[in-house]
Formats: sequence, C-alpha cells, structure tokens
Amino acid sequence: MRDGPDVAFMRQALELAAQGIGRTSPNPPVGCVLVRGAEVVGRGFHPRAGEPHAEVLALRQAGERAQGATAYITLEPCAHYGRTPPCAQALIEAGVARVVVATTDPNPQVSGRGLEQLARAGVAVTTGLLRDEAERQQEVFRHWIAHREPFVVFKTALSLDGKTATVAGDARWVSGEAARERVQLLRDELDAVVVGVGTVLTDDPWLTCRLREPAVPHRVPRDPVKVVFDTHARTPPRARLFAPGPRGEAARVLLLIAEGADPARVEELRQAGAEVVRLEAGPDGRPRLEAALQALEARGLTGLLLEGGSVLAGSFFDAGKVHKVVAFVAPKLVGGRGPTPLAGNGVARMSQARHLERVRVEPLGTDVLVEGYLLEAWSRADA
Amino acid sequence: MRDGPDVAFMRQALELAAQGIGRTSPNPPVGCVLVRGAEVVGRGFHPRAGEPHAEVLALRQAGERAQGATAYITLEPCAHYGRTPPCAQALIEAGVARVVVATTDPNPQVSGRGLEQLARAGVAVTTGLLRDEAERQQEVFRHWIAHREPFVVFKTALSLDGKTATVAGDARWVSGEAARERVQLLRDELDAVVVGVGTVLTDDPWLTCRLREPAVPHRVPRDPVKVVFDTHARTPPRARLFAPGPRGEAARVLLLIAEGADPARVEELRQAGAEVVRLEAGPDGRPRLEAALQALEARGLTGLLLEGGSVLAGSFFDAGKVHKVVAFVAPKLVGGRGPTPLAGNGVARMSQARHLERVRVEPLGTDVLVEGYLLEAWSRADA
Repeated sequence: MRDGPDVAFMRQALELAAQGIGRTSPNPPVGCVLVRGAEVVGRGFHPRAGEPHAEVLALRQAGERAQGATAYITLEPCAHYGRTPPCAQALIEAGVARVVVATTDPNPQVSGRGLEQLARAGVAVTTGLLRDEAERQQEVFRHWIAHREPFVVFKTALSLDGKTATVAGDARWVSGEAARERVQLLRDELDAVVVGVGTVLTDDPWLTCRLREPAVPHRVPRDPVKVVFDTHARTPPRARLFAPGPRGEAARVLLLIAEGADPARVEELRQAGAEVVRLEAGPDGRPRLEAALQALEARGLTGLLLEGGSVLAGSFFDAGKVHKVVAFVAPKLVGGRGPTPLAGNGVARMSQARHLERVRVEPLGTDVLVEGYLLEAWSRADA
Repeated sequence: MRDGPDVAFMRQALELAAQGIGRTSPNPPVGCVLVRGAEVVGRGFHPRAGEPHAEVLALRQAGERAQGATAYITLEPCAHYGRTPPCAQALIEAGVARVVVATTDPNPQVSGRGLEQLARAGVAVTTGLLRDEAERQQEVFRHWIAHREPFVVFKTALSLDGKTATVAGDARWVSGEAARERVQLLRDELDAVVVGVGTVLTDDPWLTCRLREPAVPHRVPRDPVKVVFDTHARTPPRARLFAPGPRGEAARVLLLIAEGADPARVEELRQAGAEVVRLEAGPDGRPRLEAALQALEARGLTGLLLEGGSVLAGSFFDAGKVHKVVAFVAPKLVGGRGPTPLAGNGVARMSQARHLERVRVEPLGTDVLVEGYLLEAWSRADA
C-alpha cells in the first residue's frame, strides 16, 4: 500500500463515506475531502439519494479555498446529469487542481468519463488509492449497478458440527455476544432484513438494530426494513416486528405473499402496518424469488440481509441469489439432527459446491467469523 | 515466555520428543538434551514402550560429560521402577547439576516425586518451561493417565453451511489439499483410526498414512491401526483397508463386532487379516462404546483418530467420549440436506452445547482449521 498524506486523506474520505452506508440506496456511500497545502478546507459525504453528492457538499464548505486544492473522493465523480448536476464539472469550475479517487464508476457506460473530463480540463488525476476498502464500502451499489438486482448478504451462525439449532429447535444462542453485536451492525448497514415466515412464527423476532452507540461517528443507528417471505400471509398481526424500534422508529414491514392468500388476513396485516406485496407464485406455490427481488429493488432496497431460516436461505442459494456470506462459526458441538444454515436442493456433487472468494477470517469474541463473496460480478464490472 | 538459551535447549528437547509421537503408547513421547557450558553433550528421546527413556539415552551419549551438565527434559523424570529403573536416580548418579523440565508427571500419585528426589540430592530444578507445547505433545498420555481410557480426537471437514457431503452422499472433497495433508499427519501421530462400517462400505478407504516425507525429521511415517465399528461384521474381506500401506507395511485391522454376528463372516474376516473383537451389545444392538474403548486401551491404543461417519461420531459425542476436535471448515456452500459432522441424539437446548476450550484457529490452505478440547481433565490432573 502507498503511504503518506494521500493515504491519510483518502482514509478520512472513507470515514466520511461510512456515515452514509445503508442510507443512500440505490446510490453508493461516497466521501470527499478537499485539501489545500496541508489544510483540510472542505468535507462532505452523500447522506441520502436525492440529496447533494459528497463533492458538492465539500466544495460548498471550501468556497474560495477550493482553488488549487486536491480532492480525495472515494468514487470517481459523476460526469452526467442525474438528480444532481455533474460533480466533475463542479470540481473543474471550483478550480480544484488535483483529484485522487479510490474507485472508478462501476457502470460500464460511464466508467472513466468523470476522470476523463477532469483530465481534459487540466486537472491532475490519480486512481485506485485504497481501492479495496472503497469497493467494500460500495459493494451493494456496485452489484446493483451491474445486475439491477439487490445484493444479498447471507448471515448465519453455526456450531462446529454444522447446526443452527438443536434437534428440539432451540437456537438461543449459537454464537456469542460479539457475533450478535456484529449482526446489529449488518442490520444498521443494509437496507432490509429478510426472513421466512417460519422464523417469525418460531422466534417472533424484532429484527431491529439494537446498537446503542453509532458504529461510525455521527451515524445514528436505524432499523432496517423488515421483509417476510410469507406465502399464505401467516404472519401474526401482533408479531413483534410490527412494534416500534428501540429508538421509537415506526417499523417498516414488507410482506411478500402469493396470490391466493386469504384477503381477510391480508387486510388485517395491512392494518397492523404492513405493506403487503402480492406476487406470482412459482410451481412450489411460493412467490417466485426473481419477482420478489424485483419488488424489493423497485422499492430502493438494494442491500439485503438474509437471516434465515434454512429453507428460505436454501431457495436463495439454489437460485444463485446469495452474493456474500457472513458466517459465525461457534466452536462448540450440538450433536443430533438439527437444522443447518442451508436446506433447499443443494448441489449433487461436492465439486459443484460454491466456493467463497476473497475470504476473510476474523476471530470474534468466542467465535470465528468467516466471510466471503459468491459473485465476482461487481468487481468484474469495474475491471 | 522466558527467552534465552534455556528456551532454545528445551525446544531441542521437544523436537527430539516429537520423533516418538504416536510410537510410544501408552508411554508419553519424551525428549532430553544434556548441555555442558554451551555444548550439547547428549541427546535422547523415548522411541517406544519397553525401550529406554529419553534421559537414559542422553546420559549414555554424554558419558563422563554429564558431570555438571544441565538436563532439559520435556517431562519430569520418573522416580519409580517401571519397565526401566528410575531416571531421577540416573541423573543424580551421573552428576547432572541442574534439571529443567517442561511438565510435571500427570499421574497424581507420582507427580513431583522425581523433582523432589533431584532437589534432595542437591540438583537445581526448574519446571514449566514451554509447558504448553509439551502438554500438547503429551496430551494422549496425560488423558490416559487420568482416565485409563483412550484419548479421542474427532476429525471432521465441513462446508460453511455445515455439510460433510452433498445430499447425494458425495464427499470428495470437502476440504482442500493442505487440510487433507494435515489429516495424514494426524494418522501418523495417533495410534489408530476409527470409523464406522458405513464409511467402509460407502468410501472403501485405505486409512493409511500417505505422508511422503517425515513430518518431523527422522520420523518415518507409519500407518495407524485401523479400527472399524462393525456390529454385524459387514466389512468386505476385500476392502482396501486390508491392503498393505504405501510403504509396504502389513495392515493392522481391528473389527469391533457385536455378539451374534455371523460366525462364517467373522472367520472370513479373520482370514483376510483382521483381529475380530466380539463385544457385548448395548440396548441398540451395537457394541457398547465403553467396552469398545476398553478393548482398544487394552491393546495399547491410547490415541484414537475418530474419522466418522456422523452416526458413529454422534454416539461418541453422546457418550462424552470426544476429547479433542479438529475441524476443517471449508469456505464453500453445498446446500441441501446432506449429513453434518455429528448425528446421534445431541443436546436438547443450545445452552447445553459442549464448548471447546483452548480453541486454536489456523488458516490452512483454502480452509480454516478450528481445533480445541472438550475435556480439561488431563490438564486438571496436573494442576
């Protein structure tokens, strides 16, 4: 890794960007730091879709001092008119002398154009600084841009003998406190939590984000949207997931049901506060997964945390719709024939098993976190 | 950790001891280095039960030069007459001035006596140097001394969704090459490999040690004894496990059958080279596990590598007879309802799950090795 002031300033830009993670969908989180001499003259991050880009906020703060400054931006500035005017143009007009970016735009149709525009205007351009960290921050966006479907993070916790619960169904708790705290962070950073109705009926979970402190400075935790795959509309209208969150936020609940669910139940669930989405059923009678993902994407839910159970997770896996895995392996033995993280059909031959890529192993409290990716697409789009 | 020449010499003693791992049962592997000034004047390790102890071999090599020397020994020297005269006495008579040991004798009836004898004779004594490493080397022995039963190492390989095979039964291979090589090392270091007859019928494994190079300098790899839990004597007489090993060694096969197995089959298996041990059956018709472990212990098989399948491993787990777990977690997803490492009854509540202690996590090739202990007994006996 290159060192020195460039790295330090880009790190500041990444820290700013982190304030937007989970808040900007379908846009990416982006941070920008403007530096003149050794002095930071402007800071900004993209807070939410429809609001100004990071560069614009940093330029506003810098005012005249942007003249001759270096801009550190976690993503290539846009060159096109979207909801906001192009940032590349704004940087040029403000007299910025040099632009350092971590990643280029993953959209193949516009990738490189912002940098090109800058270079043509005589601005010095550097790319790829802390690229890995930035790509990780932007992984939901980068996947969505490449596939126009939500990025699915499958989270699971299993014992060292592969169980997510005992044979009697008891799952409290497989993993330790540090792992469960990490799950709260995932809920804070992804748009929605996805579960099957079986999990609602068995565990009656809140599915809120119970972080007490901001995981990132100034980023107040917030609850994810709660999505339930509920073919027959069996979610109890008094289920905990309809209750307000720990900070008093009204719950946002999305129920994905199949045609043919009882209309009276559906009405009752609407009155409980759910948005009920009726979807075409597949041959198994359950809502088609593709249609479900499209319904979520249409609502701006581009980052999903798939929490279970194993039947729902198995259907995502069988359909090739698991993109990242976050597994907490608890060094304990349960025995018996309890459930594993994935059911579904699975693969027939071990050689067909899906290997995780860019695997990261992290001891976490008493457990071991193993995470990785099942799809190279979002980074390939950037290649 | 203390540093300096003491540590370096004790490490040499541990390396010598390692040449005996898996060869000395029911005795422990022990190494001894004799040092005068900065010069090593004698080296020894215990090669096999009935042969001389490490100290005796090192003293023989040193001869007169043992006078005034320091002895580095991985285990407290014995003070009693066993198959050999007491080593503490031999060290005193040779004029050794100082003795440094890694661990004390785990047998509560003799622990500390060797050191006491030395101290009373005016020999300076230090204990506990590199104790953790030494205890690990001696774990089979230490468990056996405390419980007079074999030490059972349960080895498994599972996908990140908890599977040891696909739903179609394909298990080749769950883990990568580095993990499979590590299994060969386990076979080299434990007295016997234990499997259920189901594994023999399904996989027809060799169960040999296929290491090409000594894992420890000068320690020629050797095949473990092959133990099959085979209630009805269904092992095929032409099974691969009867074949000579990769170095031409004759296979040593032990079949544990229940009363009532067909005598003609038993005779056939004896002619194929098996030692057939007929055991009392439990209520489930299978040989009682306690009786089986006693039969193995009586044959000097004090270190067992339990390789599966999940039904046999489950019965060991249910009986509290898994003492160490070596799990290779492969970062891949299989899906479906294939087998997990452990079946059996298991525990009813997650809070009853058995936690591993002294957990070690090691990235190993493409996989993650997680290992730990289910029983503190052998170290408690030393407390």
